[in-house]
Amino acid sequence: MRKFNRPALCDVRPADPVFAKRIATGIARTIPAAMEKTVETGRLDAFRLNWQEGQPNKPHIFWDSDTAKVLEGMAYSLALQPDPELEKTYDEWVDLICSAQQEDGYLNTYYTQFEQDQRWQHLSWAHELYCAGHLMEAAVAGYECLGKRKLLDCLCRYADCIDSVFGLEEGKRRGWPGHEEIELALIKLYRATGNERYLKLSSYFVNDRGTKPNVFEMEKDGGSISTALQAHLPVREQDTPVGHAVRMVYLLAGMADVADEENDPSLLDACDRLFEALRQKKMYITGGIGSSFAGEKFTIPYDLTNGSLMYAESCAAIGLAQFAIRMFNITGENKYLDVAELALYNGTLSGISTQGDTYFYTNYLEVDENLQAYNAGARERQPWFSCSCCPTSFARFIPQLGTFLWSAGDNGIAMNIPAACHADLKLKDGRTVSCKVEGNYPYDGAVRIIMETSGDYRLTLRIPAWCKEYSVKVNGAAAEAVIERSWNAGDVVELDLEMPVSVIRSNTRITGNNGRVALKRGPVVYALEQIDQTVPVREMILDLNAGFRLVPAPEGLPEGTLAIAGSATREYFMDDNALYTDDTPGTENTTFTAIPYALWQNRGDSNMAVWMRAR
Amino acid sequence: MRKFNRPALCDVRPADPVFAKRIATGIARTIPAAMEKTVETGRLDAFRLNWQEGQPNKPHIFWDSDTAKVLEGMAYSLALQPDPELEKTYDEWVDLICSAQQEDGYLNTYYTQFEQDQRWQHLSWAHELYCAGHLMEAAVAGYECLGKRKLLDCLCRYADCIDSVFGLEEGKRRGWPGHEEIELALIKLYRATGNERYLKLSSYFVNDRGTKPNVFEMEKDGGSISTALQAHLPVREQDTPVGHAVRMVYLLAGMADVADEENDPSLLDACDRLFEALRQKKMYITGGIGSSFAGEKFTIPYDLTNGSLMYAESCAAIGLAQFAIRMFNITGENKYLDVAELALYNGTLSGISTQGDTYFYTNYLEVDENLQAYNAGARERQPWFSCSCCPTSFARFIPQLGTFLWSAGDNGIAMNIPAACHADLKLKDGRTVSCKVEGNYPYDGAVRIIMETSGDYRLTLRIPAWCKEYSVKVNGAAAEAVIERSWNAGDVVELDLEMPVSVIRSNTRITGNNGRVALKRGPVVYALEQIDQTVPVREMILDLNAGFRLVPAPEGLPEGTLAIAGSATREYFMDDNALYTDDTPGTENTTFTAIPYALWQNRGDSNMAVWMRAR
Repeated sequence: MRKFNRPALCDVRPADPVFAKRIATGIARTIPAAMEKTVETGRLDAFRLNWQEGQPNKPHIFWDSDTAKVLEGMAYSLALQPDPELEKTYDEWVDLICSAQQEDGYLNTYYTQFEQDQRWQHLSWAHELYCAGHLMEAAVAGYECLGKRKLLDCLCRYADCIDSVFGLEEGKRRGWPGHEEIELALIKLYRATGNERYLKLSSYFVNDRGTKPNVFEMEKDGGSISTALQAHLPVREQDTPVGHAVRMVYLLAGMADVADEENDPSLLDACDRLFEALRQKKMYITGGIGSSFAGEKFTIPYDLTNGSLMYAESCAAIGLAQFAIRMFNITGENKYLDVAELALYNGTLSGISTQGDTYFYTNYLEVDENLQAYNAGARERQPWFSCSCCPTSFARFIPQLGTFLWSAGDNGIAMNIPAACHADLKLKDGRTVSCKVEGNYPYDGAVRIIMETSGDYRLTLRIPAWCKEYSVKVNGAAAEAVIERSWNAGDVVELDLEMPVSVIRSNTRITGNNGRVALKRGPVVYALEQIDQTVPVREMILDLNAGFRLVPAPEGLPEGTLAIAGSATREYFMDDNALYTDDTPGTENTTFTAIPYALWQNRGDSNMAVWMRAR
Repeated sequence: MRKFNRPALCDVRPADPVFAKRIATGIARTIPAAMEKTVETGRLDAFRLNWQEGQPNKPHIFWDSDTAKVLEGMAYSLALQPDPELEKTYDEWVDLICSAQQEDGYLNTYYTQFEQDQRWQHLSWAHELYCAGHLMEAAVAGYECLGKRKLLDCLCRYADCIDSVFGLEEGKRRGWPGHEEIELALIKLYRATGNERYLKLSSYFVNDRGTKPNVFEMEKDGGSISTALQAHLPVREQDTPVGHAVRMVYLLAGMADVADEENDPSLLDACDRLFEALRQKKMYITGGIGSSFAGEKFTIPYDLTNGSLMYAESCAAIGLAQFAIRMFNITGENKYLDVAELALYNGTLSGISTQGDTYFYTNYLEVDENLQAYNAGARERQPWFSCSCCPTSFARFIPQLGTFLWSAGDNGIAMNIPAACHADLKLKDGRTVSCKVEGNYPYDGAVRIIMETSGDYRLTLRIPAWCKEYSVKVNGAAAEAVIERSWNAGDVVELDLEMPVSVIRSNTRITGNNGRVALKRGPVVYALEQIDQTVPVREMILDLNAGFRLVPAPEGLPEGTLAIAGSATREYFMDDNALYTDDTPGTENTTFTAIPYALWQNRGDSNMAVWMRAR
């Protein structure tokens, strides 16, 4: 039985300098832009099932997922900010999508139009179950946020169709999704409908995965990719994250959901073991994961390079945050929130511009002249990609940011991230507890919570792992982080998290970071962006003994953002044309200004570094 | 007209602590081991043209090149050290190879057996012209070193066959090798036979390459690989090395040869321009080139990472040395020797064990726990590869090492690398000048040259770019580096190159090297290998102010090798399980011992670093 429930989408309304702005921009720009691209690229029209050879925009096997993710974002947008015109469009999209459903419930634009006889024949790469999962998530979003049943009913029929095909029961066949996603989606469908068949099907997909004989290895063209797809071993026997990073965290989210619903401690243990292996050996300081561009994948422990060969896909960081918040809500353990918070403020939001309509696929931790568009893409965020999972992920992720801030339990509420917001939290006993959080978190650790609901309940304040000193007061009197009392509306809780600038070093096994530090304050990782410096970033050595000053961020960054300023030395060579030299480097004194990493590259193309030389 | 000729294989006999040992091991082990593998893997039997479906070892499109390279090595081995049994085997191999020649001269085991109708249809990837080139090189080696004509005649017929197909003349078609090699091989064939048709065909391949319409882009499956194959622009218009690194340097060697034979200054300019772009922006400190595992290719300037994602293929460094020595012999400019020497002592020999029978494909500059066999290969040298170009390259390269040491000109001789040896150098006027070089170069800069031939001629001593102070004496009297005099047999020339330990830093654009230094002494790049240290290499910070001591290399390394010892600080963290920490690192005093980079990983598996933290 999970400790906490995640709030419903509209129950927590951020009013802070980070999430609130991102959500507003998401509604105003990210979702409309993603809708435009979905239409413009033919992804929506694919559901008309009438593409003809010779026409542009031939539907692709993963397109349905993009449309579904944007539709999910539209539902969230409508829930947060009703808009009749958008709702009309929403309904039209739903109608069109439902019109593509086949008599037996099957709903996939690619295979229906082009390869009907190949249905379910290429599970390892065909993305059918992945697309189905995203459609289910969209359907549940529409139902839960807007009360609309049409798409939900449609996807239930599709889920029933899938359930009739896959499983261990007689008359069914074994099969696993090549790109995990449907596991967590089926749990959402189960929770929305109460139909246990969906829980069982999800549980089947999770528990059969990686058993022998291996489904993928028996497929034509499917051999030897089991590790890439986390299917080399039964999930309970896996002990380190491997393969495609997005798939890995989607699988983990599904595993956590199944463990939760089936009260399965060994499955939950596997989730925790993989989480620990990830955060202890395979995670960037930003919460970015999957360090290899080739295969978009996890590699070996401590292989976390910063430069032109790294990856850290936006979708993977988003998936990590979604997995981690599930694990916290199930277990109540703060270590999961520490990772979720890290990913939220850094490795996810770095993937989207403050304007809300351009995206990184790859979230570099260092960019210099020696990084041009030669890997996944780009020094600069792009409006769309041919494989456009990251933009469409943001369309549905950004509106959900509030749901990370609070959790609601049996007899209490938990403040996960003390960002300013208003929260209405439904306890399991049916009561709603409301409160308002004030402050400038994550740039200020002083937070006020004004309780709006009287009664006996517990308020749990998370003390982040990054925080070494803190104080809690209730109506001015010292208190603990877990406060169980009889509240009166108007009670004021003050949480003060000390938030000095931290000088972070890596485990020495990340050899490229040896001799370098990163600056972090609270949950926010900082970076040197070239535009803010007077000498090349690559030639700067931070002077750690000179102290740091907090200053308003440079113009062009969101209001309320704090930058870190200090002293540095420049080290350079007289002969800039030499590749190697035995010259002693020249030095000069300089200063530095570091900005939150997630905000880099919003003021034009610029070099950047998170890990900096220091002394 | 080139300034110098390269000596014939047997004219320079090394007696130094590096090349002499490598050559002896090459004859005793490298070539026999490569022969065994060539037989064992079916590469030799491919020439029987009788492979049947169901048998093991189906011939592969590039196998002929492996057999040819080993055969070339066998010819060199026989020339340096006659061996009747080996000669018998050599003749049998030649007979077998010649037996596979078709009536029209065509000689390719793969296409003859499997796809006769696909001859010359897939120039971009089929390796036909590449295999032909290696067979030509083997044939010329057998002829020049052993006086054997059978294979030479066979390959002349094949060259005639190729010449009948490709060219701009009526009745021929345009075509370029996807993997360059035949260009330089045809020049060898031209020089061995005097048949100008081969020079013209080579010149055609060089000069037509990259012109419009693009041959590769017109091939089925050939599109969009022109940059990888250096065919995106005519060679004269290319200004930076691109694409597959081995191909690039093979092309450059062929371009240099054609420029030399055709007295073509603009083609020579292109060679020099590409050489400069390479050494100024795309070369590791070891002379390794082609930094990307993916595509085995050059990437962008300054993209020279050291760790698990780097490449620097052995064959590419060998190709660079072969290109650079050509450029020196043509122009007499020492900058080419500086690069050739660097590659010889470091980036090439690192690819082969001191035992002579295991090989690196990838020549890492740093290995830590975070490098396992997840890229091209291996932390440890391997005896063979399915694509086994590197082992077979060493089989023919190692015996040639002596030919780099001296060059012979019109009226004089040039000492390129002052390694101990005996040299008999043929001047263009027909005289032979002999001399003996004594010393322990590259570990000692003091060299004695005992002249054995009386007469008027010039002795040119190269002063390497790494050398800041030097002296020259003739019979005890001070002299210049270029000595033109009337020599008496028994005259003694003393060259003293000051050879302190140099602390090398990179251009700051190689951002991963900032804050790090490499140690170099003379032409030899040093590395810290874990086996010689008492604390983890990754945690060591060299103390540059404490000075360096030269010490005999640790046991297990070749006699005469010098190591560099000094003081260092260890910087480490209390919590080795943490991935990131704000703890202040602990420190302790320690010492270091650095060995020549090329000798690492000869005493078992061990971590290693060339670029080290220092202060």
